[in-house]
Amino acid sequence: MGGRRVGIVDVARRAGVSVGTASKALNGRGQLRSETRERVRLAAHELGFVPSAVAASLLSGRTYTVGLIMTDHHGRFSLPILHGAEDALGWGETVAFVCDTRDDPIREQHYVRSLIRRRVDGIIVAGRRTEARLPLVGAPTVPVVYAFARSADPEDCSVVVDEAAGAVTAVEHLVRTGRRHIAHVTGPHGHASVRARVEGTHRALRAAGLDLVGEPWYGGWSEVWGRFAAAALNRAHPEVDAVFCGSDVIARGVADGLRENGRRLPDDVALVGVDNWAPVAEACRPPLSTVDLNLREVGRVAGTLLLRAIEHGPQAGLHTVGCRLVVRASSAPS
Amino acid sequence: MGGRRVGIVDVARRAGVSVGTASKALNGRGQLRSETRERVRLAAHELGFVPSAVAASLLSGRTYTVGLIMTDHHGRFSLPILHGAEDALGWGETVAFVCDTRDDPIREQHYVRSLIRRRVDGIIVAGRRTEARLPLVGAPTVPVVYAFARSADPEDCSVVVDEAAGAVTAVEHLVRTGRRHIAHVTGPHGHASVRARVEGTHRALRAAGLDLVGEPWYGGWSEVWGRFAAAALNRAHPEVDAVFCGSDVIARGVADGLRENGRRLPDDVALVGVDNWAPVAEACRPPLSTVDLNLREVGRVAGTLLLRAIEHGPQAGLHTVGCRLVVRASSAPS
Repeated sequence: MGGRRVGIVDVARRAGVSVGTASKALNGRGQLRSETRERVRLAAHELGFVPSAVAASLLSGRTYTVGLIMTDHHGRFSLPILHGAEDALGWGETVAFVCDTRDDPIREQHYVRSLIRRRVDGIIVAGRRTEARLPLVGAPTVPVVYAFARSADPEDCSVVVDEAAGAVTAVEHLVRTGRRHIAHVTGPHGHASVRARVEGTHRALRAAGLDLVGEPWYGGWSEVWGRFAAAALNRAHPEVDAVFCGSDVIARGVADGLRENGRRLPDDVALVGVDNWAPVAEACRPPLSTVDLNLREVGRVAGTLLLRAIEHGPQAGLHTVGCRLVVRASSAPS
Repeated sequence: MGGRRVGIVDVARRAGVSVGTASKALNGRGQLRSETRERVRLAAHELGFVPSAVAASLLSGRTYTVGLIMTDHHGRFSLPILHGAEDALGWGETVAFVCDTRDDPIREQHYVRSLIRRRVDGIIVAGRRTEARLPLVGAPTVPVVYAFARSADPEDCSVVVDEAAGAVTAVEHLVRTGRRHIAHVTGPHGHASVRARVEGTHRALRAAGLDLVGEPWYGGWSEVWGRFAAAALNRAHPEVDAVFCGSDVIARGVADGLRENGRRLPDDVALVGVDNWAPVAEACRPPLSTVDLNLREVGRVAGTLLLRAIEHGPQAGLHTVGCRLVVRASSAPS
């Protein structure tokens, strides 16, 4: 509030040059003597002149803004992606409009139109699941990068996590620390993440000359499913000495279920989860070893690809980020 | 990226009017015959013309953008505030640049400068704790509203939660459902939230003619603290028939600690937490009754006040939002 903003006119007057010259001097454009450029910059500094990004964008054709469309209400997946994108976008050099569609396609369309009206330079779409999703409707004029959930159109640019490789890392870790009877308790049958993790589990066991204990246990993404599965698994396969779980939440239920059925963790049974979601992995008893999906890195790569697409044109195709294992007490050798 | 954007010049040419007239027609400004206005709108529609918000903002002096500065990395507090603010800002009529300072004052300054350069109409600062915070540095030219964490300057506009009243609601609920020996297990001694909840607890008990069982148990915001406190509380005060906990996370630890010490929940002991953080409250055994801090409503009020400040000037002072009790199985009457 407080007073009129200092404008380019004030700067030009103080420096004794035309408005056009002042503008060129501050934008680093045009042919000017370096003394002139310096005089204008000094005047701007003395007056506390803040150049308007709005006006600058009319010159450059870029607004140095992007849209980040997130779909998960709780931000568990989108926020790390946002943080990684912020790193890539240079901490405020380019800033992100964040729109939460709450998984509602009507809201998504509405936000896309709003972002296009604001002339964003590009859009990142952060998914909350790894299923392929339909491309954005109505955003053909700016580059779009899909992060975590890939676009169903292979001509689009998507950044995904290699989830099968993450499962391989988890199982290799269990085998290397002496476990031989490994079971897999996971989420709903149809999910892309679930399928990828089952595939990686089988691949790693085969490479070690082992078989999975029983079939994969498909269920829900919940602690209660983990507890039920642990009780049944312990009855059906008392030889089990490790469980790779499809999520940290499931693993926490498995930990409680095994303990309440008389198994000691990690002595009798080792556990590894997926997500590295701190409130769950750290509160688990014992604290949970887990596969980190590297979502911040997904966001960083998505931001980098988006900037490249804005400057150099489409970066089509599927870009893959690896997982990493975080070891805590639940998988200590017995 | 496909072809040149349709511009106002194209619209004017198709409608057979000057660029100035086309612009007036689309902005609803100036004195024009309604046939002319209609002809321009029809031409814009036929050409798929998307008006540029950047250009429009140069006319109106407003950009219809705001900054949302968040401080908590995991978004537990900031995201519901963002959602509420989105509701108030009209779903894309005004959109929010979201900047996560990760509690770093250098990043905060950097982002504030970046937002000011982009001529945001205002800024919402979403805290992750209820302690008063220092006002933003360097944002004197646009209205600022502080959400959840109030500004230390009473001349600023802050929206806070009435946490003491939330504690009163929780204790009243326990008393009304038949509990008489109520203890309080909570977070670190110095926190503003902790003090407010202790104060509300005492007030509600006094009004019911009861005393707190023992002193408040101050500790950390963790499950492990909840478990330790439950074991010690059960030993020191076996008559306890209810525990009001300073957070859902603490309450979940108290639930496990009491159960593992032979108490049945809710039959022997009822529990109420604070936060209504679904992953914890719903996974608690039994599911947890809890005080919801209404953060989305905090965001909605902050967004509404910010728009009012943008249009009508400062809305100084402290604005308070009430809590609400969410009842689940943990506080069923015995």
